[in-house]
Amino acid sequence: MPSVSNKGLTMPQSPIRKLVPFAEGAKKKGIKVIHLNIGQPDIKTPQQALDAVKNNNINVLEYSRTEGSEEFRSKIAQYYIKNDIPVNANEIIVTTGGSEALSFAMNTIADTDDEIIIPEPFYANYNGFATACGVTVVPVVSKLEDNFALPPIEEFEKLITSKTKAILICNPGNPTGYLYSKEEIQKLATLVKKHNKFLVADEVYREFTYDNKTHTSILKEKGLEEHAIVIDSVSKRYSMCGARIGYLVSKNKDFIATALKFAQARLSPPTYAQIASEAALDTPDSYFAEVKEEYVARRNLLITELEKIEGIKIAKPQGAFYCIAELPIEDADHFAQWLLEDFSLNNETVMVAPAAGFYATEGLGKKQIRIAYVLDKESLKRAVHILSEALKNYKG
Amino acid sequence: MPSVSNKGLTMPQSPIRKLVPFAEGAKKKGIKVIHLNIGQPDIKTPQQALDAVKNNNINVLEYSRTEGSEEFRSKIAQYYIKNDIPVNANEIIVTTGGSEALSFAMNTIADTDDEIIIPEPFYANYNGFATACGVTVVPVVSKLEDNFALPPIEEFEKLITSKTKAILICNPGNPTGYLYSKEEIQKLATLVKKHNKFLVADEVYREFTYDNKTHTSILKEKGLEEHAIVIDSVSKRYSMCGARIGYLVSKNKDFIATALKFAQARLSPPTYAQIASEAALDTPDSYFAEVKEEYVARRNLLITELEKIEGIKIAKPQGAFYCIAELPIEDADHFAQWLLEDFSLNNETVMVAPAAGFYATEGLGKKQIRIAYVLDKESLKRAVHILSEALKNYKG
Ligand SMILES: Cc1ncc(COP(=O)(O)O)c(C=O)c1O
Ligand SMILES: Cc1ncc(COP(=O)(O)O)c(C=O)c1O
Repeated sequence: MPSVSNKGLTMPQSPIRKLVPFAEGAKKKGIKVIHLNIGQPDIKTPQQALDAVKNNNINVLEYSRTEGSEEFRSKIAQYYIKNDIPVNANEIIVTTGGSEALSFAMNTIADTDDEIIIPEPFYANYNGFATACGVTVVPVVSKLEDNFALPPIEEFEKLITSKTKAILICNPGNPTGYLYSKEEIQKLATLVKKHNKFLVADEVYREFTYDNKTHTSILKEKGLEEHAIVIDSVSKRYSMCGARIGYLVSKNKDFIATALKFAQARLSPPTYAQIASEAALDTPDSYFAEVKEEYVARRNLLITELEKIEGIKIAKPQGAFYCIAELPIEDADHFAQWLLEDFSLNNETVMVAPAAGFYATEGLGKKQIRIAYVLDKESLKRAVHILSEALKNYKG
Repeated sequence: MPSVSNKGLTMPQSPIRKLVPFAEGAKKKGIKVIHLNIGQPDIKTPQQALDAVKNNNINVLEYSRTEGSEEFRSKIAQYYIKNDIPVNANEIIVTTGGSEALSFAMNTIADTDDEIIIPEPFYANYNGFATACGVTVVPVVSKLEDNFALPPIEEFEKLITSKTKAILICNPGNPTGYLYSKEEIQKLATLVKKHNKFLVADEVYREFTYDNKTHTSILKEKGLEEHAIVIDSVSKRYSMCGARIGYLVSKNKDFIATALKFAQARLSPPTYAQIASEAALDTPDSYFAEVKEEYVARRNLLITELEKIEGIKIAKPQGAFYCIAELPIEDADHFAQWLLEDFSLNNETVMVAPAAGFYATEGLGKKQIRIAYVLDKESLKRAVHILSEALKNYKG
């Protein structure tokens, strides 16, 4: 039997995937599983996006333009301009989700065995895309004690070699919920300019910033134009993860022209999804105001409830909708499985994402879990109560 | 300024892309361009596929299952079973177009610098996906004189090394229109079994076979189960290229489990497109009968008209909707550009795809063009007339 590639063998699995059979097992036993592990918003997709698809009048469902239509990209540019980010349609490539934007970015800037520096913990699929592209992820540890703020810039500089192609950040962060300050962004900007590297910012959670903090896009940094690559997506912003539309944004013309070649090979992004996404761009600000209000309320409730748990440490999130907590246990992987296999309270249990899967450094984050607060407050409160009771019963 | 990757620099551009500005130039001069270069069917998408999307009742557009829903995959399996191909839902991964299925397949079986043997001329994007994956394409020449039949199997065997991971064929072929016979498939099957390699068949044009010839899927070959990987797509079959839905099909469990890891990294295929594609599977056989009849009529007309051109050589296609012709000229690239820049007949001209872009071997196919017969017969006839008149005027 012919064997699969090394790439395939080393391709990491989602940190949650191995828990899925246990969640199914719990459900079979009649136990309700509250999912704190999923980054899939429960918020309604904006009505005009849904309507645009229902009212489409396509007769022949043709390939669209590789980079997305002129009108769609112009509307996206307007969105950025409204957010004080000076971008035009030619600086945007529409992709199949932020996921594809990440793949294209890596392929466009890095060859096999090149390196990309990423503060950990980070979105686990960065590892997957890097493996697929043959790129090595070089992690810099950020700490729960600091709320996962940017590690000292010297830590990044120490790791820069001729193989380094870029620093990649997620802002605000999944799984950290951390929102980088303007000063942090400027430190990164100075560093990449000094060493002539790219700075890639995954800004898919840009709209989700709380406590009156504002988001600093790397596209706003003067002098960073040739270095800055932004990954964006409609998935979380408009609660339309299933559309599969994202964007790659850069003012570096060589970068865009080269990324376009990768895009051409796969022909075009999905047509219906582009119709929905173009309509979603007209979503009124009031939608975001309401959504933000809801997430803030959920976050506040989550933190308040978690803080009641003895021995817990929490990184207080200021953006996105994730929160990392360190539990008074040794092995969150084991605990997460135990929750599904052996624990329930009033016939309910919870599923959490063990955080070790978000670290590239072996052994880090073993006591940590990531909680996604994309549940109604009632369920969230019950879930934390279950967690708390579970911890009292857990023998480790 | 940081520079792009070597991968990016060597990433091939579509053979048609460089002609686009000349086509735009012609249009600006008021000249109508008849496109013989585009593989985008003009046939109406089946109504039930369009309706399913219009009648969807999604409120939160969620991620779907990474591999496509159980129901959808079961219906796909039924489609195969109806076509005498024994496949079950677990042997299928739904992808974002056949394009993504090709990327996943290459990543799953080959590491950087591994080799895949492909008869040329071949679908140009195979080269693109290979470049993105760091894989080397090793071509075997097939000849217009033989209608692009399978080259002698010894030619393949000579090229097999320890780096070879697979032989990749397209059946029926884009750009050749050639339909491999059962005997040809069996020769390939014997060879890959002998050397323990994968056989990847791009069967996206499976339904488009003419003259009562039947298609031989590699999935039907006894004993080939662990070696066979099929690339499939709804794009051409149901004239829904813009959906972006394809499938990866294999009975090799390791292959499927590993490909699934690449699929997980990009989360899920597009939801609306899956709704359309699932509904498309109910398309009655009468739809294909009509479509086939139309393509056969177009092909016959095309061949009849082309044969009137002095000095032309044509590979008679038995499948797909492409035809390669060798013209009495030296450089089809130059001719194609000249057609757009300097020629018109009654204010019309034609755009063709120079075939050199479909060969990996430098210098091959320079006199050849690929014609896609996805136009109504009237336009097709006019287009060939224009070609014919152009050749009389062309100075080379
Ligand atoms: C940080 C981050 N980046 C990118 C993505 C990819 O999302 P999509 O491909 O749906 O745009 C996600 C999804 O969870 C994410 O959390
Ligand atoms: C031979 C072949 N394979 C694969 C594809 C990819 O098509 P899609 O990604 O739309 O399924 C095409 C498209 O033209 C093709 O001609």
